[in-house]
Amino acid sequence: MLVQKYKDMLSGKSVIRQLSEFATARGREIGYENVFDYSLGNPSVPVPREFTDEMIRMLTQMETNELHGYSPSLGITSVREAVAASLEKRFGLPYRREHIFMASGAAGALAHAFRLVTEPGDEVLTFAPFFPEYRPYVDLTGAVLKVVPPDTESFQIHFDKFEEMLTEKVMAVLINTPNNPSGVVYSRETLKRLSDLLREKSARYGHTIYLISDEPYREIVFQGVEAPCVSAFYDDTIMCYSFSKSLSIPGERIGYVAVNPHCKDAEDMINMCGQISRGTGHNCPPSIIQLAVAKVLDTTADLSVYERNMEILYGELRSLGFRCVKPGGTFYIFPRALEEDAGAFCRKALKYDLVLVPGDTFGAPGYFRMAYCIDTEKVERSLGALHKFVREEYQCPCIRQD
Amino acid sequence: MLVQKYKDMLSGKSVIRQLSEFATARGREIGYENVFDYSLGNPSVPVPREFTDEMIRMLTQMETNELHGYSPSLGITSVREAVAASLEKRFGLPYRREHIFMASGAAGALAHAFRLVTEPGDEVLTFAPFFPEYRPYVDLTGAVLKVVPPDTESFQIHFDKFEEMLTEKVMAVLINTPNNPSGVVYSRETLKRLSDLLREKSARYGHTIYLISDEPYREIVFQGVEAPCVSAFYDDTIMCYSFSKSLSIPGERIGYVAVNPHCKDAEDMINMCGQISRGTGHNCPPSIIQLAVAKVLDTTADLSVYERNMEILYGELRSLGFRCVKPGGTFYIFPRALEEDAGAFCRKALKYDLVLVPGDTFGAPGYFRMAYCIDTEKVERSLGALHKFVREEYQCPCIRQD
Repeated sequence: MLVQKYKDMLSGKSVIRQLSEFATARGREIGYENVFDYSLGNPSVPVPREFTDEMIRMLTQMETNELHGYSPSLGITSVREAVAASLEKRFGLPYRREHIFMASGAAGALAHAFRLVTEPGDEVLTFAPFFPEYRPYVDLTGAVLKVVPPDTESFQIHFDKFEEMLTEKVMAVLINTPNNPSGVVYSRETLKRLSDLLREKSARYGHTIYLISDEPYREIVFQGVEAPCVSAFYDDTIMCYSFSKSLSIPGERIGYVAVNPHCKDAEDMINMCGQISRGTGHNCPPSIIQLAVAKVLDTTADLSVYERNMEILYGELRSLGFRCVKPGGTFYIFPRALEEDAGAFCRKALKYDLVLVPGDTFGAPGYFRMAYCIDTEKVERSLGALHKFVREEYQCPCIRQD
Repeated sequence: MLVQKYKDMLSGKSVIRQLSEFATARGREIGYENVFDYSLGNPSVPVPREFTDEMIRMLTQMETNELHGYSPSLGITSVREAVAASLEKRFGLPYRREHIFMASGAAGALAHAFRLVTEPGDEVLTFAPFFPEYRPYVDLTGAVLKVVPPDTESFQIHFDKFEEMLTEKVMAVLINTPNNPSGVVYSRETLKRLSDLLREKSARYGHTIYLISDEPYREIVFQGVEAPCVSAFYDDTIMCYSFSKSLSIPGERIGYVAVNPHCKDAEDMINMCGQISRGTGHNCPPSIIQLAVAKVLDTTADLSVYERNMEILYGELRSLGFRCVKPGGTFYIFPRALEEDAGAFCRKALKYDLVLVPGDTFGAPGYFRMAYCIDTEKVERSLGALHKFVREEYQCPCIRQD
């Protein structure tokens, strides 16, 4: 017999996926360049030349069995060393290879993090708005994801609600800063207060509450914004990183788990990751990709386009009367919809070939997400459609005349 | 708190891993070329030129975001189509892309297969001798692996024992042909009898017993040996394939699940794999590797060296008086040790710098495995050590004088 829980999931199609399929179908009708597809968080900037050059160099010069051979289950030793050295230099914490586990992207890293510190029935807390895949990621381990409602003023943490929900059953708190979908970066103050609370409750409950920090957008931070290192605030932090966004290589499935060197069980935890892999069928990211990223750890794709797009959209949205927290990073913006039902709002937008994602998906009804990882030229062309949409559907008095 | 079951696993170190570490350490003392390391199943023949050329071509010519972008969760559509077409041509079953799920190696494929058809507490049967990782692969899903004792005459299936163990609790039977560690290929007769029995018991118990066929060695079959297509015998077969051995790229983590097109729920099962991935953190094999293997599906590395090595070792072992089933494929041979305790036998062999793995690890005490995926020149050089070992430790009367 097939396992019912997975069969049941087949009917629940992801809203983002459906919207993206709409965009593709509509693109076939009117040309994809005329569909303003803000649905998918796919990096749009080219992969850095250094990465491609290193791949070609290895394929040309290295002995093939050495290049494509098995990686040890924790990752290639020299790669783990390079990652540790880079983190130490960057964040001033004494990372060594013993603290690094190479994982197949952030999804792989998180799958290991949850299994390290939660048993079935344990609770994991996260904060709305949140990346919707967190739900199956956690729930399919047997643990239970609970979502703290958003502080819609700032999209920092709603501490009153958080403290209420931080019961003895909570074994891990999952954060994502810079944040998908809000674009907000947690401030120093937020991280300080969060870590103080975790220390206090860990002491009171007699067990460590681990902080799982999902950081795929760490390198996409805009000018004048400080993005503090989460691990520096809290010893029991499990950092989950992905190179998908920083190097524009989401298909190559590469990232890592870095356990804070000050975490008492750090080395055991990394070794445990190797055991967890045996059950999940993980077995390391691809060898050639591990070797290539190790050579470009201090490089990123040219991420400046995302800031340019953000400034254009943020300005325009504000002038159209949208309430909106200004993103500090990522390639997302998360304005308030012009009617209560963000689903209805986004459906109307489709008539103008604007593909927006309702905030309900992210645990924040009444908002919508725009993923502006598209060409700036297209962002500029979309403004006319955005105008027309708002004018015709909402007749907002605050709308700029043109 | 850290999860105890993974913490407990840290103390149980794999015998193969320990032996391989011994070989590395000893290599540092006397030169690795002087250690006859038969412990690890790492492909030793070069990667086919076509694969490398295709990788370089894509890196040189393709737009980087297209090349390194997200793969759909079931795999890149054109790649799934190419795999299906190749399987259809080869095995005559009507495979379509709907029957193919791209997975990160055989470990990834198996992790999905087990989750498709077993709930915690269900039983999975496999046959000794067996690949020892099957135990954590299955047990960590919550299902229970039970092992049918070996038929040591032929290393085909011990059907009496099998029938006894094939109770109502068994939801899946896991086979591996050509087999690691025995090198034996299941005959047409074995597969016919196995599938007849599965059909009979499925009908009697009122639930399908799925056949999970782990086929990473499918392309390494020796002259004159027939390796029948498992899926052709049984509709409810889940084929798990890896390109690790056929293309010598074990580090690149690429394989697939192919559900038999005649299986009633084939398409649902493939879609369910996409859901299972959300819990395991799988998210597809690397895009560039998917695209590259799709171009070389009908190519393999030059695998002839394995047959050459097998013939040399088999002849020598027989002449030294070992009892041994002649391998039909793979790069393993599994002779009977010269004393009851194969562990003691293998420890003595280490004195002669021969690294052999005791059969206990594979569920067949009294035997030992040699992985002859090493240079033929080294196999030939190892014969002197093998002679000396047997002569000095066992004084077998049957030993050829030199």
